[in-house]
Amino acid sequence: MPDFSNPNLPPANRTVYFISDGTGITAEAFGHSVLTQFDLKFRQIRLPFVDSVDKAHDAVRRINDAFALDGNRPIVFSTLVKKELATIVFKSKGLHMDLIQTFVSPLEQELGVKSTHTIGRSHNITDSEEYKNRIEAINFSLTHDDGQSHKNLAAADVILVGVSRSGKTPTSLYLAMQYGIKAANYPLIPDDFERGKMPSALPEFRHKLFGLSITPERLSEIRNERRPGSKYASIENCRYEVNEAEAMMKREGIRWLSSTTKSIEEISTTILQEIKGDTKLY
Amino acid sequence: MPDFSNPNLPPANRTVYFISDGTGITAEAFGHSVLTQFDLKFRQIRLPFVDSVDKAHDAVRRINDAFALDGNRPIVFSTLVKKELATIVFKSKGLHMDLIQTFVSPLEQELGVKSTHTIGRSHNITDSEEYKNRIEAINFSLTHDDGQSHKNLAAADVILVGVSRSGKTPTSLYLAMQYGIKAANYPLIPDDFERGKMPSALPEFRHKLFGLSITPERLSEIRNERRPGSKYASIENCRYEVNEAEAMMKREGIRWLSSTTKSIEEISTTILQEIKGDTKLY
Repeated sequence: MPDFSNPNLPPANRTVYFISDGTGITAEAFGHSVLTQFDLKFRQIRLPFVDSVDKAHDAVRRINDAFALDGNRPIVFSTLVKKELATIVFKSKGLHMDLIQTFVSPLEQELGVKSTHTIGRSHNITDSEEYKNRIEAINFSLTHDDGQSHKNLAAADVILVGVSRSGKTPTSLYLAMQYGIKAANYPLIPDDFERGKMPSALPEFRHKLFGLSITPERLSEIRNERRPGSKYASIENCRYEVNEAEAMMKREGIRWLSSTTKSIEEISTTILQEIKGDTKLY
Repeated sequence: MPDFSNPNLPPANRTVYFISDGTGITAEAFGHSVLTQFDLKFRQIRLPFVDSVDKAHDAVRRINDAFALDGNRPIVFSTLVKKELATIVFKSKGLHMDLIQTFVSPLEQELGVKSTHTIGRSHNITDSEEYKNRIEAINFSLTHDDGQSHKNLAAADVILVGVSRSGKTPTSLYLAMQYGIKAANYPLIPDDFERGKMPSALPEFRHKLFGLSITPERLSEIRNERRPGSKYASIENCRYEVNEAEAMMKREGIRWLSSTTKSIEEISTTILQEIKGDTKLY
């Protein structure tokens, strides 16, 4: 989810609501991507699970109260599937932007079929193959974090390599959680650099390796938060490890990217393209 | 992200594109929430990082090729921030649905200011406090997984409790990754039930405890995948553990919910409401 909590922005004196009959995650992602286009600070309120007439009326009351309080129309981002509930909420005094109602009608016309008006598939999501794969991938990534287990590396979709604290663990977990990718991760440590060889468990899986690197300056900063003043965190050592790791990845033909200014979302999307291409077939 | 990969749905013979100048995560979430309203199977292609004129033209070619191949207009969900790039992409033969262009203009009017037309804040996201909090929370949740460490439980925002495999670990990681919540988790085990007391590290943090339960049938299913035919996985044992855990949570006044049919997104949203209320102030 994009960040727009910049404390230096001027306040808009506006309340923003994210309303959904489900978790509200899409409504919030949607709203954030629109709001980041403005250099203003908004007061934000999430109202998930608005799935009954009563809750819809309650949402309207809250929106109208905020209007009275702020003196400005609240902005309402919603993903309301049921027309009945959307109709109630839209009667509030807010400025309404609804994903489903805006885009489903033109799509009904284009496809020549009516929409089902169900609340996503979220109620039986836990039975779906895709959901089970995600949970399995999380467990896989956890047991294969930081080179913990060599067992079953053959089952990995990708094996991330890089120096300690280059971002491997959060990226593995994100790939697993968001995309159901079985992502193992394996540290490159000074022992490997001295031997001039990558860890012995890895060469047979060369085609699945993906490297993360980072600038020595940033690495030293991150390591100093953990172990202040240590040799491990010193800029000299970080320079040595990063140089060696990058040289090793080049020598071994391992694809890699620098995580320095990239979020785990951006790193994961790039890796996903590399290992899966941009096509997903269902 | 909602699941709609139901293999039993009839094919729409349509190609769907998710296009973004960033990671495409919002475009995909947006598209999925609209497409789940239709009982049809779509061929889906993600095109992230479309951030130059060349890449925009390339996207147009691909959309037009799909049209020629399918004989049906592709559906294009996009979150293109730069008007210049959006204008190029919109010239393709697809049916275009763009989040930013649709909603930013009315918001400019409402707010009386122009939008910044930057690509989110994603380029300096790693410097933001919110991003650092998320990474810190992931590390916290990992070191406090499954009761591994009692140290620093005082720093936890929430401590999930429940029987083994009730969904604590993936929920903790999701809370950390998505919301920057420091979520520890702690198992309730037969030893605790025999003593009739919760683990000794927990009572002082009673106000932060949140329980997960699950039906014995589902628990037995999940445990049988790990350790087939074991006593641990048997329905009798699962019934015993679940009954004892629920009785303990009731006795101790711990809030809890059943994870049986809920996704980690739904569980996390509910917990977030409980511990933070529905208001987020920036």
